[in-house]
Amino acid sequence: MSQALRIGVAGLGTVGGGVLALLSKHRDLVSQRAGRALDVVAVSARDRAKDRGLDLTRTAWHDDPVALARDPAVEVVVELMGGSDGPAKALVEAALAAGKPVVTANKALIAHHGAALARLAEQHATTFAYEAAVAGGIPIIKMLREGLAANGFSRVYGILNGTCNYILTTMRETGREFADVLADAQKLGYAEADPAFDVDGVDAAHKLAILAALAFGSEVAFDKVMVEGIRQISALDIAYAAELGLRIKLIGLAQLVDGALEQRVSPVLVPLQAPIATVEGVFNAVVAEGDFVGTVMAEGRGAGAGPTASAVVADLIDIARGRALPPFAVPAGQLRRLPAQPVEARRGAYYLRLTVVDRPGVIADIAATLRDEDISMESMLQRGRDPEAVVPVVITTHDTTEGALRRALKRIEVLQAVVEPPCALRIESF
Amino acid sequence: MSQALRIGVAGLGTVGGGVLALLSKHRDLVSQRAGRALDVVAVSARDRAKDRGLDLTRTAWHDDPVALARDPAVEVVVELMGGSDGPAKALVEAALAAGKPVVTANKALIAHHGAALARLAEQHATTFAYEAAVAGGIPIIKMLREGLAANGFSRVYGILNGTCNYILTTMRETGREFADVLADAQKLGYAEADPAFDVDGVDAAHKLAILAALAFGSEVAFDKVMVEGIRQISALDIAYAAELGLRIKLIGLAQLVDGALEQRVSPVLVPLQAPIATVEGVFNAVVAEGDFVGTVMAEGRGAGAGPTASAVVADLIDIARGRALPPFAVPAGQLRRLPAQPVEARRGAYYLRLTVVDRPGVIADIAATLRDEDISMESMLQRGRDPEAVVPVVITTHDTTEGALRRALKRIEVLQAVVEPPCALRIESF
Repeated sequence: MSQALRIGVAGLGTVGGGVLALLSKHRDLVSQRAGRALDVVAVSARDRAKDRGLDLTRTAWHDDPVALARDPAVEVVVELMGGSDGPAKALVEAALAAGKPVVTANKALIAHHGAALARLAEQHATTFAYEAAVAGGIPIIKMLREGLAANGFSRVYGILNGTCNYILTTMRETGREFADVLADAQKLGYAEADPAFDVDGVDAAHKLAILAALAFGSEVAFDKVMVEGIRQISALDIAYAAELGLRIKLIGLAQLVDGALEQRVSPVLVPLQAPIATVEGVFNAVVAEGDFVGTVMAEGRGAGAGPTASAVVADLIDIARGRALPPFAVPAGQLRRLPAQPVEARRGAYYLRLTVVDRPGVIADIAATLRDEDISMESMLQRGRDPEAVVPVVITTHDTTEGALRRALKRIEVLQAVVEPPCALRIESF
Repeated sequence: MSQALRIGVAGLGTVGGGVLALLSKHRDLVSQRAGRALDVVAVSARDRAKDRGLDLTRTAWHDDPVALARDPAVEVVVELMGGSDGPAKALVEAALAAGKPVVTANKALIAHHGAALARLAEQHATTFAYEAAVAGGIPIIKMLREGLAANGFSRVYGILNGTCNYILTTMRETGREFADVLADAQKLGYAEADPAFDVDGVDAAHKLAILAALAFGSEVAFDKVMVEGIRQISALDIAYAAELGLRIKLIGLAQLVDGALEQRVSPVLVPLQAPIATVEGVFNAVVAEGDFVGTVMAEGRGAGAGPTASAVVADLIDIARGRALPPFAVPAGQLRRLPAQPVEARRGAYYLRLTVVDRPGVIADIAATLRDEDISMESMLQRGRDPEAVVPVVITTHDTTEGALRRALKRIEVLQAVVEPPCALRIESF
């Protein structure tokens, strides 16, 4: 058996602790599958005095992560500090510049600097791996980059944020409202004290930008992702969706449309029969559509110490085996810069929930406005009658363009009987 | 860019044609992802005169596949002839003996000779890859061997035969009987003229034995797989299952129980909420349970020219990149021989459908027999009343052992009022 692979780990939080626990528990199994032992020879974290329940007596300690990257005893750097810039970026750059491969779970870093880091790695004849950055334990990076490498992809989409999926699932199961379920999720540790990063879709957008780059051989373009979160989803929308045979999911979707790249994260309605509709709770799932393989879906836990450690160590085993690849499957210089497909050009169906005063002629006015934009209605629901009271009206449309819909909504929201801004959601025919 | 990888393809049926079509359509894409071109320089098939719609003018032809393996122009052999012995085995052995890596879609060959071939490959410092042999386009071999390599597995199971899943799905959707749906499936090309290989579970058993070897680091032990097919499933069972909130699926399942390996293929009842319950039609799915990652499921098309070609070419790209691994993840000499766990030791719940004469005391006799074996009933359904007529009675049990159940069934089937052999199916709590 070859010599042990000497690893430096920066960041000893939940994930870092999970990685050390895995490497310790599965020392023999991992050696067998990697063809050599995986030894953590150095670590770096903020507070040396903190008791993490880890035996670090035979491990070098660096207060400065960049020093860890430069430690000659360290062959591979594992970055688990997080943050798109600052120390994490400095560490990764230092390691790559020293020709050392990097393994990271840092989606923000890759989303913001993926292409530049790929060039830096190539320049120094090394690489970085980031299986843990997208969909946690699901080996989706390997699947797109290797397992499905023989396909041209038309579309890749998924449930990329477990917090949002947990909140939407719980809202559906209990009939409760967003704010209420979020508060509970925070108590249970499924949502952060500051939930914006998750519920506003930013975390999912980081992951989507990475998946898109990999699937389409393009530079990561996080700034081109259209992002909408789930705060505006009400219990009413979830109930109406169920009535329509649909389910609301926060979906990140990237597709090529006439050579342009559409990337968006938003709550959408999906048919109950779609495999992704039944992915519930904190689970994540990613679907890839390849021209030879057809539709493939992978589902599993998208976060947590165990699943993330599983992905980090899988990357380490690849490196130990010498199975390094260009980070985005093709050489950095060959990554394309694709034009962004504007969301206004999206063609598809829509769900509209309007809050109106129940009086004769309201529906006629709305229908006429839609007709003026060539939008044809597929269904209309107005439950009960309550003259002069405020009631919800739900409309689904046949396929139209988002541009037409937005123009119609602008005119609808100023109708006198319409008392709240309309809620409009995309319907996807997965 | 490095020199092209020179490939020999033996077998030009549906899958062989698909592989050549893919390599031709995606010449640039594949070169980019493989780091070099993939050139088919030689082929072998039975009938040279047959028009396959392929341009083979610049490709060497070998009537004898073994000659293709020995052709010095061929660096890698792709075996797509099928069959567990005969020419396919001779070809693969010749290629490995010549130190040439082999890519195959041949599940029967690997199921029967996997361990011996792994030793042969190792002896000649080469390897073989078989992503296409299990679950078609789903990259489950790579997932178990690499993506989830950091986990100890407790269980791996899946829907491994699209023909059976199509038949069971159609039976449920239409209420029709097995023989009727099978005949239709044969007309549609979803089932072979001789369907035994699929509907009796043999094909699924081949794939299960391969998955088990990979997950548990053991020698492929196809002869130890317990196999039951779906011929005995009636429309009645499917309807009762639905009433119980369950769905019948042909599942291949392998698990470690106290160091012994349980491998079985059989129709089982799974709860509707289980992700695998909603995998329908010709789709396949595989679920792996790892100690760090938790439950991961991958779903996609398990057969067909496109999906199979996708898997074959993914293996070729790995070989082009120099990413060869031991076939079962660990060196052949380290593969374990695990004792077989007898199915009688299985603990779990059961579904029983009895065909009885409707008369007082029948249920009491059955219940007493179950009680004598310490089996407790969870539910009993006898729809309608029809004194002295033959009626179905459905019973579900709480967890018991299969040994106890079999003893009880032996006594139940000789009860005077029981007029047909009982139908007993396992219930899995996925």
